Amino acid sequence: MVNNTVTAPKGFLAVGLHCGVKKSGKHDLGLIVCPTGVKAAAVFTTNKIVSAAVQVCKKHVKSASISAVVVNSGNANTCTGKQGLANAVRMCGETATQIESNPGNVLVASTGIIGEQLPIGKIVSGISKAAEKLSASSESGLDFAKAIMTTDTRAKQAVRKLEISGAKVTMAGTVKGAGMIAPNMATTLCFITTDAAITKPLLSKALKAAIGNSLNRLTVDGHQSTNDTAIILASGLAGNRPIVSQCPRYKKFANVLGQLCDDLARQMALDAEGATRMFKVVIKGAASKADAARACRAVADYPLVKCAVNGGDPNWGRIICAVGSANVKLNPDKLSCKLDDVTVFKNGGPIKFDAKKASKVVSQTEHTITVDLGAGKVSDFCYGCDLSAGYVKINADYHT
Amino acid sequence: MVNNTVTAPKGFLAVGLHCGVKKSGKHDLGLIVCPTGVKAAAVFTTNKIVSAAVQVCKKHVKSASISAVVVNSGNANTCTGKQGLANAVRMCGETATQIESNPGNVLVASTGIIGEQLPIGKIVSGISKAAEKLSASSESGLDFAKAIMTTDTRAKQAVRKLEISGAKVTMAGTVKGAGMIAPNMATTLCFITTDAAITKPLLSKALKAAIGNSLNRLTVDGHQSTNDTAIILASGLAGNRPIVSQCPRYKKFANVLGQLCDDLARQMALDAEGATRMFKVVIKGAASKADAARACRAVADYPLVKCAVNGGDPNWGRIICAVGSANVKLNPDKLSCKLDDVTVFKNGGPIKFDAKKASKVVSQTEHTITVDLGAGKVSDFCYGCDLSAGYVKINADYHT
Repeated sequence: MVNNTVTAPKGFLAVGLHCGVKKSGKHDLGLIVCPTGVKAAAVFTTNKIVSAAVQVCKKHVKSASISAVVVNSGNANTCTGKQGLANAVRMCGETATQIESNPGNVLVASTGIIGEQLPIGKIVSGISKAAEKLSASSESGLDFAKAIMTTDTRAKQAVRKLEISGAKVTMAGTVKGAGMIAPNMATTLCFITTDAAITKPLLSKALKAAIGNSLNRLTVDGHQSTNDTAIILASGLAGNRPIVSQCPRYKKFANVLGQLCDDLARQMALDAEGATRMFKVVIKGAASKADAARACRAVADYPLVKCAVNGGDPNWGRIICAVGSANVKLNPDKLSCKLDDVTVFKNGGPIKFDAKKASKVVSQTEHTITVDLGAGKVSDFCYGCDLSAGYVKINADYHT
Repeated sequence: MVNNTVTAPKGFLAVGLHCGVKKSGKHDLGLIVCPTGVKAAAVFTTNKIVSAAVQVCKKHVKSASISAVVVNSGNANTCTGKQGLANAVRMCGETATQIESNPGNVLVASTGIIGEQLPIGKIVSGISKAAEKLSASSESGLDFAKAIMTTDTRAKQAVRKLEISGAKVTMAGTVKGAGMIAPNMATTLCFITTDAAITKPLLSKALKAAIGNSLNRLTVDGHQSTNDTAIILASGLAGNRPIVSQCPRYKKFANVLGQLCDDLARQMALDAEGATRMFKVVIKGAASKADAARACRAVADYPLVKCAVNGGDPNWGRIICAVGSANVKLNPDKLSCKLDDVTVFKNGGPIKFDAKKASKVVSQTEHTITVDLGAGKVSDFCYGCDLSAGYVKINADYHT
């Protein structure tokens, strides 16, 4: 079987296990260790309230060489004050001790409930136990992917292989995330490993672009969490001619990284809390990029559109209503809408269409809603998912 | 029994009946008729796609004297092109013929499904039948209130009495609206009658202020419809000294109108699609009015907050997360949050609180979430309601 986990690229060990944060007994602690040291880059939430882990990770990611990432799920370590900060630092310290590195070379992330202190004793014991089980097997990679899950129903992983200057390069990634997902944020938690040789600034540039076109395009409930973090680690062990400028080799790398992240974003949409199907919103004919983005999000975030998709209903009226209230330039006489290739509204008026065919389109696992604003030439897109009674159940029953 | 319907003030007749727009057989056509002519003012949706009724009503409301309002539910007459416009004009024309007035003195409103032509034949017959049943009884007023309902589960009405310069003045109102409700819009459909004597400009000023502090503060699903219309009609028959300037009499009138609209807004929140309870969000300590308003809305619109309220869960972490992602100035070290009078988060950190008491607060029919941003001295508020599995069911099963 192909290893599609974060241990697929050369130079990475991983582990995931239960240390006692989650009452369910499920995995709640994970490590990725890079014995040879790696270059790292990251993007973070733009929420003004951020977890202690994000505060610490932002500092440590500046290091020239990173030796490990430590992650816990089940507790966000957010709104936890000085004690929370000390605990995040301690997670790095304990990991560094176990692998004989420096705390400043360890990255940290947390996800879960807000406002409770970490059970740091359990996490510290867990880190020591985890260090003994580190391996490059796909089982260990999968254990790591499971360790970052919260309300996710399945591990989300992707792998890509490419050739750069004759060398075989691998990149692999895993994400968690089910609620609190919106465009204009970093993402939820996302960890990508690669054995490509590439400079830190170019790694950062490629990550930002890839996240910008994938995870940042996904909206589940219009909000970004306090803990969103995406990290990429590059070991340089593939043996490719190092990528040191925005040359064709960089473009190839960045392009495949974009595909990897798009794959992960789609998996996230389909595993969003309560989601039964996803959709892509394409806005055409916008007067500006900002208008196009705003209109995309207005459609994807509109509860009535999301409910209609849940019901498999080609309710274009709600799509038009969402666009109309998005405060964007539009030409009411040119406004048009398609569901996949079925035109349901044209030049500002309803047109006859095959209702059965349109219902079939909306009832697919994925479909594309295209709206032409008739006001310009700019396009944009985003991803959304349906709103189900299951989403409400998950989030009403999840007690603090 | 007190008449709490739109026929309570002097000078108004009303009627509501089933004419055939709704398949359910429920009321779908209503008239308010003002035999002596009244002064009118209105506010409308800011959605860029508006119904034909809104387009026609915007013109007619400029008339110095209004003789009737005609409303249908079950069909929004939106995205219906020239035919739709002609139908809206015809609704005014038929009403004018029945009551011997001019089409330009008749206001019109529609609500319901988008993108289908009105069954204008049925509506025309209905108007003629309705004209014969016009009366000033509270039964007729209630029939009108029922005729504007869509997914509402009950008629929403309010009445207020006050004294102006020794004369007894009455005002009464009814609203419909269950989904597609958000701040910064006119409202859904709202009709207010009064027998106060007041100039048209002051009537308009008072209506805008009242709606701005009530219906515009209510958010159910963050969107405004294409049909939102609020109309006030003043017959001047109360015999008060006419209100012609912003004198104390005006202030009294405006104040009571504000109370009436607040009453209607609360009724709407509690009858929002699937809603089981409502809440008020108060933002304090904001650096600007815009920040305060944005933070209010971020909390009230956040699906995770709405689900927590549905579950009776004092999940302050989601409230803080919503505020943090609202892109407003805040002081993380001063940030505080209360649920009614239970402080759950203070100066940027969680504090011990009585969880049972907090759960009780959130489980009430109404409670207040107060957040102090610690960044300034400006306050604002808005109303929201919970998100239930019922909301999803209503909107997933509502087929086009």
